[in-house]
Amino acid sequence: MMPWPSQVTATSGKFIITQTFTAAISGAGSASTKDDARVRDSVTRALYQLFRETGIPVSLTLADEKSSPSMSVVVERKKPGIQKLGDDESYRLSITPDHVRIIATEPLGAMRGLETFLQLVTIGPSGFSAPTVEIDDHPRFGWRGLSLDVSRHFIGVDGIKRTIDGLAAVKMNVLHWHLSDDQGFRIESKKYPRLQEKGSDGQFYTQSEVRDIIAYARDRGVRVVPEFDIPGHATSWFPGYPSLASGPATGKAPYQIVREPGVLTATMDPTKESTYRFLDGFIGEMTKLFPDDYFHIGGDEVSPRGEWYHNAHIAAFMKKNHLANFPALQAYFNKRVLKIVTKHGKHMEGWDEILHPDLPKSSMIQSWRGKKSLAEAARQGYSGILSAGYYLDLMDSAAKHYAVDPLKDETAGLSDEEKKRVLGGEAAMWEELATMENIDVKLWPRLAAIAERFWSPEDVTDVASMYRRLEATSHWLDLQGLQHLSEIRLMQARLAGSFDPAPLAMFASILEPMKGYSRHRTQKFSSIFPFNRLVDAIPPESDAAREFRDAVDHNDLDYVRARLTEWRKNAGTVLPTLQSNGLLTEDIEVANAVADLCSIGLEALGPKPDAARVQAMLAAVDADSKPKAEMLIQIAPGILKLVQKIQ
Amino acid sequence: MMPWPSQVTATSGKFIITQTFTAAISGAGSASTKDDARVRDSVTRALYQLFRETGIPVSLTLADEKSSPSMSVVVERKKPGIQKLGDDESYRLSITPDHVRIIATEPLGAMRGLETFLQLVTIGPSGFSAPTVEIDDHPRFGWRGLSLDVSRHFIGVDGIKRTIDGLAAVKMNVLHWHLSDDQGFRIESKKYPRLQEKGSDGQFYTQSEVRDIIAYARDRGVRVVPEFDIPGHATSWFPGYPSLASGPATGKAPYQIVREPGVLTATMDPTKESTYRFLDGFIGEMTKLFPDDYFHIGGDEVSPRGEWYHNAHIAAFMKKNHLANFPALQAYFNKRVLKIVTKHGKHMEGWDEILHPDLPKSSMIQSWRGKKSLAEAARQGYSGILSAGYYLDLMDSAAKHYAVDPLKDETAGLSDEEKKRVLGGEAAMWEELATMENIDVKLWPRLAAIAERFWSPEDVTDVASMYRRLEATSHWLDLQGLQHLSEIRLMQARLAGSFDPAPLAMFASILEPMKGYSRHRTQKFSSIFPFNRLVDAIPPESDAAREFRDAVDHNDLDYVRARLTEWRKNAGTVLPTLQSNGLLTEDIEVANAVADLCSIGLEALGPKPDAARVQAMLAAVDADSKPKAEMLIQIAPGILKLVQKIQ
Repeated sequence: MMPWPSQVTATSGKFIITQTFTAAISGAGSASTKDDARVRDSVTRALYQLFRETGIPVSLTLADEKSSPSMSVVVERKKPGIQKLGDDESYRLSITPDHVRIIATEPLGAMRGLETFLQLVTIGPSGFSAPTVEIDDHPRFGWRGLSLDVSRHFIGVDGIKRTIDGLAAVKMNVLHWHLSDDQGFRIESKKYPRLQEKGSDGQFYTQSEVRDIIAYARDRGVRVVPEFDIPGHATSWFPGYPSLASGPATGKAPYQIVREPGVLTATMDPTKESTYRFLDGFIGEMTKLFPDDYFHIGGDEVSPRGEWYHNAHIAAFMKKNHLANFPALQAYFNKRVLKIVTKHGKHMEGWDEILHPDLPKSSMIQSWRGKKSLAEAARQGYSGILSAGYYLDLMDSAAKHYAVDPLKDETAGLSDEEKKRVLGGEAAMWEELATMENIDVKLWPRLAAIAERFWSPEDVTDVASMYRRLEATSHWLDLQGLQHLSEIRLMQARLAGSFDPAPLAMFASILEPMKGYSRHRTQKFSSIFPFNRLVDAIPPESDAAREFRDAVDHNDLDYVRARLTEWRKNAGTVLPTLQSNGLLTEDIEVANAVADLCSIGLEALGPKPDAARVQAMLAAVDADSKPKAEMLIQIAPGILKLVQKIQ
Repeated sequence: MMPWPSQVTATSGKFIITQTFTAAISGAGSASTKDDARVRDSVTRALYQLFRETGIPVSLTLADEKSSPSMSVVVERKKPGIQKLGDDESYRLSITPDHVRIIATEPLGAMRGLETFLQLVTIGPSGFSAPTVEIDDHPRFGWRGLSLDVSRHFIGVDGIKRTIDGLAAVKMNVLHWHLSDDQGFRIESKKYPRLQEKGSDGQFYTQSEVRDIIAYARDRGVRVVPEFDIPGHATSWFPGYPSLASGPATGKAPYQIVREPGVLTATMDPTKESTYRFLDGFIGEMTKLFPDDYFHIGGDEVSPRGEWYHNAHIAAFMKKNHLANFPALQAYFNKRVLKIVTKHGKHMEGWDEILHPDLPKSSMIQSWRGKKSLAEAARQGYSGILSAGYYLDLMDSAAKHYAVDPLKDETAGLSDEEKKRVLGGEAAMWEELATMENIDVKLWPRLAAIAERFWSPEDVTDVASMYRRLEATSHWLDLQGLQHLSEIRLMQARLAGSFDPAPLAMFASILEPMKGYSRHRTQKFSSIFPFNRLVDAIPPESDAAREFRDAVDHNDLDYVRARLTEWRKNAGTVLPTLQSNGLLTEDIEVANAVADLCSIGLEALGPKPDAARVQAMLAAVDADSKPKAEMLIQIAPGILKLVQKIQ
């Protein structure tokens, strides 16, 4: 199970799944009204999912509670209307040898309990079954989200729905949809249609698609919070509406969508009343479309040497209004925007740059720069969520994200009341180097480990247990329809061309993309760069390399020797594939380095070499550990340890 | 390329694909009218597909012909309205080092040419490219279809659309949709809603979904011909409308949907005027929904000892109307139905049982019982298509289907005029033993070989070439989004549970399901039987076994020895997986037989054993060749040859 529940009491029996399995719903909250068919839909989906997990064609038609169904889902009270922060998600799941029962206070709890039940189904001697168990579960934090950038690379409706499926599967409850940035404006505005016409390359969501996605998410217990990043990160607004910008270019050389990532200079003009009239119209339109209570205005990374810096009119405005610096100007802008957002009935949310003495306490802070700003916000009376430490685009390990707790380190010293203002967290996936072809690989399964951090009790921290369960969860998510395994297979098969993809897959299995922002700086990437190389076709974290490292640590030398022998041989087998095409030739040096590393590792396991040779081996490992073709050979650290042992 | 074009002239150059690739359309037939945006849509889809094949983010926006686009698609004339049998599908494709040109007479040709271009893109030293080539292509037959049963097991809208994608990819042009049978009535009737309410277990297509699917198919150059099988195979009509039936049960014990396959007794009553009034209403409704010229009324397998046999009223009717036997009664029924179908503006189509002297020549025959009836029909002046020999549910090899030609054997002696009446053929996929989880595996890639038989010149018959191209086509279809490889992977991973699926995959790679109808008789299957065992998770044809057989034939003994050694070892490695759960225990004896066969094969390659031992070896191979767990170990024939060589 992942996330691990608050309380689990396992017993030794089994509930066997057969094709006579039936489910019934009851309780005041189960009523299928026009307004709320969520419980009914969730149970029907769970039945279909049970079929996918087992291949057993269980009936998708709901049974009557009086007919002794196999599974009873009881929802105690209704919760119509918009899903809100703090809605009750608790449930109890009881599995006995002849009955499954889920009791939830409200509809959301039933959804969470159904996912837990589905995670418990495994195959064994008596076919598919779930262990008998008593579970009492509720989330630690009420805000558990994913911030998803669709501007740098567009993700189609299918990809968004699939991501929502995944979020619901691991009990996350917010999709924070980063809909505009310098590189693309991704939503249809009927009021200001040039936004999408000139700002999207034709890649945007229609309002009807957005409504469909919001309904889809609500049906799965996921809120959708839109973000429109202003006043910086806003270049894509300006090709259609250049007068919104502060640039000298206004009215002259037309603005273009930017293809390259970075902190750019184009910035909205906070001094013109027309800007606020436009934003009032736009925010009015969007707040009608998005029912959620929260509305995210971005607010991050306004360039200190951008258009504001070069605009005399803005300098005059600042002087006149006693705005000492750009942060003060941005605070002025935020206050004006806050008025608009509030007028349209929403709480305003923004990245931690919006934190400023003038900001009203009803605003919410998303901390991306570190826990310090989250602690500060909480002390000052703002509510906030943590994103620092959960950036999936940095290609870090699940363990690294798992270790980050919203209430540890800088936030640990907060008072109980202040701690309550820390509502939870959001993973973030920025799309500079990800595309619709590999988005699932970048998100899953690592996101499940972050989901556990947000849902499970604070003391659920065992990394070995996390990885064991993460592997099972990854396969479970694969059966749920997520594409993280398929994407890898398809992209690697494409690279292999007419060659057997198996040697390439084994070669790739010990590689990882470069970490942090180091890969971003290797070459000039852009939205129209082809992300079709081997580095784009591997998961962020190598399971094989992690297992190898563990084996070195546990001195399991038979395993270590077998793997090194196999990988060295394969580094030769894969060469003809790497030589066969232009996209793989850069990986020949990687294969040579793999062969070299394996030889050194095997040598370290043999008769002890002299000191000079050991030094040479260490130097070689160091060279092989350097990034190649934007990748790291992740068995290098384990091999370094082997050599260090004989040093 | 598959199907292979009529004329191909290859030269030695290459057209390199880069992200500056653009496409433009021109010609009278390319006009994007409200009525016909097929060319525009097809080119946009092809551009997206080019991105999927290469990972290169080519622009999806069409260029202007004047802007020197990379690819020009010229369509000479419009063809608005419904796609019809005989519409022009010819095209010329010319690829030079700096330009791709497709010239088509009508929109359909452009679609076919785009698929050919996409098939030509491969990866090599200079990245992705297409070879320079001149192709002049047109289909041999105008009717190239798939008959798809969705009654025995329902296939959802996604599965139907995916199947249409596949048909279009291999230039097939008819989806024959078998929408009703004993086991389920799969379409919404607004006029007679009890048809789907009582006849479908909730698994049916709404009319809005049907319209969506028809539009989707038209956009891809695929006609949709509906079939409603009457008067037999019609049990699912009767739970909702029992008075349509001829059974003594009418009005008493209510009719139920049948779960088991077979030739059943329930049959429509051809003697009542109310039956024809009902059919007039129903066919009137359906012919409005389905725009195609053809309407299929089934007409196969009326049970000779069914309800007609036991109904005194029917006997009296036959006597009164001088109907000598049940075929005559069915011909009477067909004539009445024909009148209705004709009145609603359609050509009537039926399985070859409808062939009867009284049947008007405007009817069309689909021959499933053999080419004899097709030849007979053509001689008598009926047009017809061949399905005998193309039943994909019988789990035969691609080569076996590929060898069947609609105009060879019994039809070879037809006159030229009679031959023209043979319009083409349809593969058929009956779903007794297939489900929505493995439908793609059952269809692909074998269907591509049949598509080639219908499209390519008669003399394209080389089996080795077919298999080489079929393998490439299979990977290409995988990238197109078909699920035949994913389904296998998912179902096998489910069976492997917490075990590494690789040994199970290797074990499964030399197995095939039993052939013909032999598996159907092994146990009592039904629509609610769980098709989740290993036999359901393997392709109909084993590539590994075929390659092994070829190696034996070519005396490539190193290869043979290596494979036998590997498979024998794996038969041991996979045992713990097979022992771990109830669904795989039946396969332990299969693994033992594999190990035995490999040992015998290796023994046959060694020092010659004495005659008695050879006899024992032959007997063992014979025993191991028998079906086990409803599967065949398909390396057995090759091993038999090895032993026979030393006999």
